[in-house]
Amino acid sequence: MGEFDLIARYFERAQQAPGVTAGVELGIGDDCAVLAPRPGMQWLVSSDMLVEGRHFLSTVDPVRLGHKALAVNLSDLAACAAAPRAFTLALALPRVDEAWLAGFAQGLFALADEHGIALVGGDTTQGPLNLCITVMGEAPAGAALLRSGARVGDDVYVSGTLGDARLALEVFRGKLRLSGDAFEQVRRAMECPQPRVALGQALRGLATSAIDVSDGLLGDFGHILRRSRVGATLDADALPRSAVLDAQPLAFRREMGLAGGDDYELVFTAPVAMRDAVAQAARAVHTPVTRIGVIEAEPGLRLVDGAGAPMDTRYASFDHFKS
Amino acid sequence: MGEFDLIARYFERAQQAPGVTAGVELGIGDDCAVLAPRPGMQWLVSSDMLVEGRHFLSTVDPVRLGHKALAVNLSDLAACAAAPRAFTLALALPRVDEAWLAGFAQGLFALADEHGIALVGGDTTQGPLNLCITVMGEAPAGAALLRSGARVGDDVYVSGTLGDARLALEVFRGKLRLSGDAFEQVRRAMECPQPRVALGQALRGLATSAIDVSDGLLGDFGHILRRSRVGATLDADALPRSAVLDAQPLAFRREMGLAGGDDYELVFTAPVAMRDAVAQAARAVHTPVTRIGVIEAEPGLRLVDGAGAPMDTRYASFDHFKS
Repeated sequence: MGEFDLIARYFERAQQAPGVTAGVELGIGDDCAVLAPRPGMQWLVSSDMLVEGRHFLSTVDPVRLGHKALAVNLSDLAACAAAPRAFTLALALPRVDEAWLAGFAQGLFALADEHGIALVGGDTTQGPLNLCITVMGEAPAGAALLRSGARVGDDVYVSGTLGDARLALEVFRGKLRLSGDAFEQVRRAMECPQPRVALGQALRGLATSAIDVSDGLLGDFGHILRRSRVGATLDADALPRSAVLDAQPLAFRREMGLAGGDDYELVFTAPVAMRDAVAQAARAVHTPVTRIGVIEAEPGLRLVDGAGAPMDTRYASFDHFKS
Repeated sequence: MGEFDLIARYFERAQQAPGVTAGVELGIGDDCAVLAPRPGMQWLVSSDMLVEGRHFLSTVDPVRLGHKALAVNLSDLAACAAAPRAFTLALALPRVDEAWLAGFAQGLFALADEHGIALVGGDTTQGPLNLCITVMGEAPAGAALLRSGARVGDDVYVSGTLGDARLALEVFRGKLRLSGDAFEQVRRAMECPQPRVALGQALRGLATSAIDVSDGLLGDFGHILRRSRVGATLDADALPRSAVLDAQPLAFRREMGLAGGDDYELVFTAPVAMRDAVAQAARAVHTPVTRIGVIEAEPGLRLVDGAGAPMDTRYASFDHFKS
């Protein structure tokens, strides 16, 4: 048995947390995991691959990396209103570093246990650092939220705040400085995003469409518009921002919010008649949501400022570490 | 939209093959794919990550690499007697090489279509070459074959032939030479393994346990023994071998068969009373199977030669390109 098989054993041991095996008949240890879908449920599946230097900095705390690797996948389940059930982890590592692995597993399993999702399989191999997670979740048939359901007249909402993760990246790049406390806050947004799993499920039957904001609000919301064959007007100054981002110059804070990326908030649409129900659902899961616009028949996305005046929409979407 | 988003589109277009969407409600294009398990079915899940230089040579034909990346995953479904349904593909590429991508997709989708499995999602990113596939398959509840079901007195079988893939690797390493035809044959075994998907399903209700041979017969069969808490005696000279391998010296051909690896054949156990049924099932799916031993109560694995004399069992399992 090689070193990398021992790593696999490490994850096998670590995953024995109580209460995270709903729908899981058999986890790690055979050629496949065995899942037992309940009658009337659909299963939702998403995969994300994270590469060092592109999706995370080589200096990131492994505890936070373990958290984030799963968080970005849970965010996809959240956007589809699915309850997390099971995930696989494939991991390529340049060398066996026990301290790194212990931290990574700690962050990964802390978030997994919080959301009741079981590690059911995967792979470990030697190679340039690469993390690939596939998540599986459950939703009653027909209850999943998709990008294609937005209707003319719907309100547009976003959860939490936008732009902090990108603000942190700009600090890492040396493009601006923040005080220690402010930096820690936005760095946490970048390294420890909280997937909106409870909100996604709370929006079943209320929202008409949803997507998670990973590449920037404008780009991701654009997917909803295209898939739903509608347009929209958004109020750029209505975007929810942290106090740290609010202290930045107007043009910069607008850009961070509209096109920052790595936010892992949900942008979603819901009929006007559901306003009270949406507000109540959001309160019930302790997740702030903000109304930022309206779905319209005219194709394309129109931005207005706080005074209602049209704005330039040529913000580039966040393309990981490329830009 | 960056180059890597365009790659994703390429796979989105290419996956539109008819008849490969059983159980798939929604494929590529949303935050998650939506799967619709049928009542009474369990879903089986497995992930494998392939890294250049470790799981494949950098010079491999991309058509064959596309085939193999999916084949090794289908082999896990085969071992569990699952019918392939859906898979995700996460791909890190150092650069966009259209010819490489076209070849890779061709090999991947040819095998996917053959086995009726749909590409339902994934990820594409820039980074050192890395392929991560997660497969999902279906089996009636309780019908999946696991490593844990072998019983004392069961026959031990293996499908196809063993050792050719490792023989090819030894040629690539310069440790021996083969004639052109012989080399092409074993190279094909190494680069284009045929997952035993039909055999796996044909063995439902007949076999008591199964595993696929990826790391070498001894190592993989050892997993069955440990999980089933039994032992076994295998006849090393009964192992099925190709004519090419049979032309090699005795000790070498034994080692290739017992510990070669990368074979993607199934090793499985079945009660003696099922001999005729197993033979008939194997014929029905045009897959040769060979009886190579018997499960015993005494723990551990005993090897005998063709004359029944005990042999040394200290063969190291194939550990990818490490050895």
